[in-house]
Amino acid sequence: MPISITPVLLCGGSGTRLWPLSRKSYPKQFVPLTSEETLFQASARRLSGTHGDLSFARPIIVTHSDFRFIVTEQLQSVGIDPGAILIEPEGRNTAPAVLAAALHALTGDPEALLLVAPSDHVIPDEAAFHAAVEKGISAVTSGDLVTFGITPDRPETGYGYLELSEKPNGSGAAVKLSSFAEKPDQTTAERFVAAGTFLWNAGIFLFKAADIVAAFKAHCPNLMAPVTDALEGAAVDLGFLRLDPEAWSGAESISIDYAVMEKADNLSVVPLGTRWSDLGGWDAVWREAGPDVNGVVQSASTTAIDCKDTLLRADSERLEVVGIGLDGIIAVAMNDAVLVASKDRAQDVKLAVDALKAKGTDQATQFPKDHRPWGWFESLAVGSRFQVKRIMVHPGASLSLQSHVHRSEHWIVVEGTAKVTVDGKVQLVTENQSVYVPLGSVHRMENPGKVPMVLIEVQTGAYVGEDDIVRYEDVYARGQGAKG
Amino acid sequence: MPISITPVLLCGGSGTRLWPLSRKSYPKQFVPLTSEETLFQASARRLSGTHGDLSFARPIIVTHSDFRFIVTEQLQSVGIDPGAILIEPEGRNTAPAVLAAALHALTGDPEALLLVAPSDHVIPDEAAFHAAVEKGISAVTSGDLVTFGITPDRPETGYGYLELSEKPNGSGAAVKLSSFAEKPDQTTAERFVAAGTFLWNAGIFLFKAADIVAAFKAHCPNLMAPVTDALEGAAVDLGFLRLDPEAWSGAESISIDYAVMEKADNLSVVPLGTRWSDLGGWDAVWREAGPDVNGVVQSASTTAIDCKDTLLRADSERLEVVGIGLDGIIAVAMNDAVLVASKDRAQDVKLAVDALKAKGTDQATQFPKDHRPWGWFESLAVGSRFQVKRIMVHPGASLSLQSHVHRSEHWIVVEGTAKVTVDGKVQLVTENQSVYVPLGSVHRMENPGKVPMVLIEVQTGAYVGEDDIVRYEDVYARGQGAKG
Repeated sequence: MPISITPVLLCGGSGTRLWPLSRKSYPKQFVPLTSEETLFQASARRLSGTHGDLSFARPIIVTHSDFRFIVTEQLQSVGIDPGAILIEPEGRNTAPAVLAAALHALTGDPEALLLVAPSDHVIPDEAAFHAAVEKGISAVTSGDLVTFGITPDRPETGYGYLELSEKPNGSGAAVKLSSFAEKPDQTTAERFVAAGTFLWNAGIFLFKAADIVAAFKAHCPNLMAPVTDALEGAAVDLGFLRLDPEAWSGAESISIDYAVMEKADNLSVVPLGTRWSDLGGWDAVWREAGPDVNGVVQSASTTAIDCKDTLLRADSERLEVVGIGLDGIIAVAMNDAVLVASKDRAQDVKLAVDALKAKGTDQATQFPKDHRPWGWFESLAVGSRFQVKRIMVHPGASLSLQSHVHRSEHWIVVEGTAKVTVDGKVQLVTENQSVYVPLGSVHRMENPGKVPMVLIEVQTGAYVGEDDIVRYEDVYARGQGAKG
Repeated sequence: MPISITPVLLCGGSGTRLWPLSRKSYPKQFVPLTSEETLFQASARRLSGTHGDLSFARPIIVTHSDFRFIVTEQLQSVGIDPGAILIEPEGRNTAPAVLAAALHALTGDPEALLLVAPSDHVIPDEAAFHAAVEKGISAVTSGDLVTFGITPDRPETGYGYLELSEKPNGSGAAVKLSSFAEKPDQTTAERFVAAGTFLWNAGIFLFKAADIVAAFKAHCPNLMAPVTDALEGAAVDLGFLRLDPEAWSGAESISIDYAVMEKADNLSVVPLGTRWSDLGGWDAVWREAGPDVNGVVQSASTTAIDCKDTLLRADSERLEVVGIGLDGIIAVAMNDAVLVASKDRAQDVKLAVDALKAKGTDQATQFPKDHRPWGWFESLAVGSRFQVKRIMVHPGASLSLQSHVHRSEHWIVVEGTAKVTVDGKVQLVTENQSVYVPLGSVHRMENPGKVPMVLIEVQTGAYVGEDDIVRYEDVYARGQGAKG
């Protein structure tokens, strides 16, 4: 009988180093970066199913409120049913998230075995990964906390390292950890790689839920009360477990490495001799995408003429990108934002996002497609007194019953069928039919069908901002003027 | 009494070296490149009004049929009333165009004095230009063909040169031409600049219409018959003089330099010691735009971090461009196309456009805003069975009476007022009102008002291509399924 492991997927992060593709409102784990799947989907799929002696249970997802519907939508589309989705009221780094997941797992199974993983890493060789997890089982069974260390293929200065007590013997078996090493300088990194006893710290952990809770009690006891309270006070909301905000705000924002791992002495490392990346910048995306003989990586709808060591991406519909005579350049284009950077300055994309934020530019944080519980919308055109949107509503989903003070709306269905309520009158509206929603009328849009419904909304009025909304009923429990 | 000069503006060209801003359907002379005015507007304005002893008459414009409505719209918006707009059925280089303009001018005034100029050059110092034109008058009066030569400020290999018979004496007076020199190599260009008797050939000419016709008769007699016939057979069409296509096709495609200037011996050159550029590539645009101390040129909505010798342009609505650590890079972004090129490869943008054409990519030749006689439209979104367009109709303008076989249309007016005819029923539709145009119905859209009318059109049907159109009546005399 295979050993059951419960995956814990951390996906609350909102990194900006892959801007413009990764934005605060839609961060990199939810974006298709190096394949058609998103990193989150690939991570969830990698931690599912049965592989040799391992059998993955339904995952525990820990995420931020803003991403909850992205999480459910993306899991659904790869056919994975989550065991629990814990909503962090605010990001508090990895330690409180892992502790909450472990405490939650223990309520169901005191013997639960957890595999904790970030959801924004690339591990192309899944078989090697599963084999490594299997190698960790015996150490975990004997009470160790197991982490996974990537055999370095270059003296990378962007990762932390794990120092082993001895050189791995090639069997893939777990080795005792000596110490954690912070991101090194170039000379130190070269020494690490030469030594053969240093592996990259991938932030992936395997342990019994009871053991990690015990480690928290021993090494970071101040987290116990707030995280326990946040979990016990959690509200069940549309299938989400929404951690209690007040209790959660009392939890220290700290990484699991600092809180527990660097202090514990029952740590083992399983070497993982496969390609791995945290895609921590566009240079990493370029490397993982597999550059051609000239070092060029191209997405569809790009043309490279005499380029080398260059990444060209066209990441929107109907967009062509051309590069000529480029050397060491990252060019990532979307309909609303374009990044052109020297590849060796990839880590400074954060600076650019900060600069855009300071200018108050929407593109700094807002993704063009605005994801909501019921689907998404995007703005196609804005004028002084009008706005045109494309709106997609999932089968069975429903927008809130609402009205607007400043705008009227024309809805034209272009795919699927909408059920529309305007001032109490209900009608089905299908492809090529339209409905007028007068200013002030109380209205609702639903998709009663089995296929996605797409409509074009033309708003006219003195003000067409998102916050002109009065909500009367909302299955997603959102408030007046609130997004989400 | 000032001397009257008739400007002849050549604007039939469709260069691709400034792609993506300049495309076949909307070339660079019609695009605002270095100021709010387009190059064509700036050229037309420079050759208008009274300046000292010069008085410019209404211009003769020679252009291609595709651009005729762009020409009238852009002239109107700078308040210039054209004397004549000659439509070339196809581009035949400059010689036939100049001969046609000269023959046309002679029909009105046997003494006509013509200033022939391309419409895609930048000459920031208009006073210096007018002074130079004035200096050319005495040579023209004595029967010379006068051209203008730019004092070079660098050994440019991208321009042809004019060799003078003697060094200009600083008075600005015309000097006899010795010879034309083709684009030189670097060494030759350096020798030219050092010599002081070589000026850049700007392709601007001043002569009596009768003298240039005489020169054609003497040096390129085979053009006389086809061009004369094309003009005599020209159709007057909505104020345009449409040269006879059959006669025109018999005219050799040849530049005025080859056809006449290099053979004539009555040539003088007026030195023009002012800044001038033909904006023959993005490197030239960068230079003319006035780089900052770091050599950076930025449009609005761009952010440059640690860049040098770089051009960053965001040339569409709601588009942000970020450059990080760039050196010698041209980045020009539009919503549908992005160019990133090494600045020293600016001349190879043509290669990229050829590559896009070979791929059959719309962006190679089509500008996002499609200009029509009545205004313009742009596609906002396209799905498998729908398309959303923004349509702008000029005051007083009217689309053809038409029907479609495959699509229905919903029109929502968002600015101004439309007069809409559907199957004989006429109604006024204003902001926030909509009209449904069923598949197969005979319909027309007009703007009866005094301000531009903007509407959103949502098309649904099995096929939403531009060529699904049956025209019944068209004030612009276009045919079935035809664009324009």
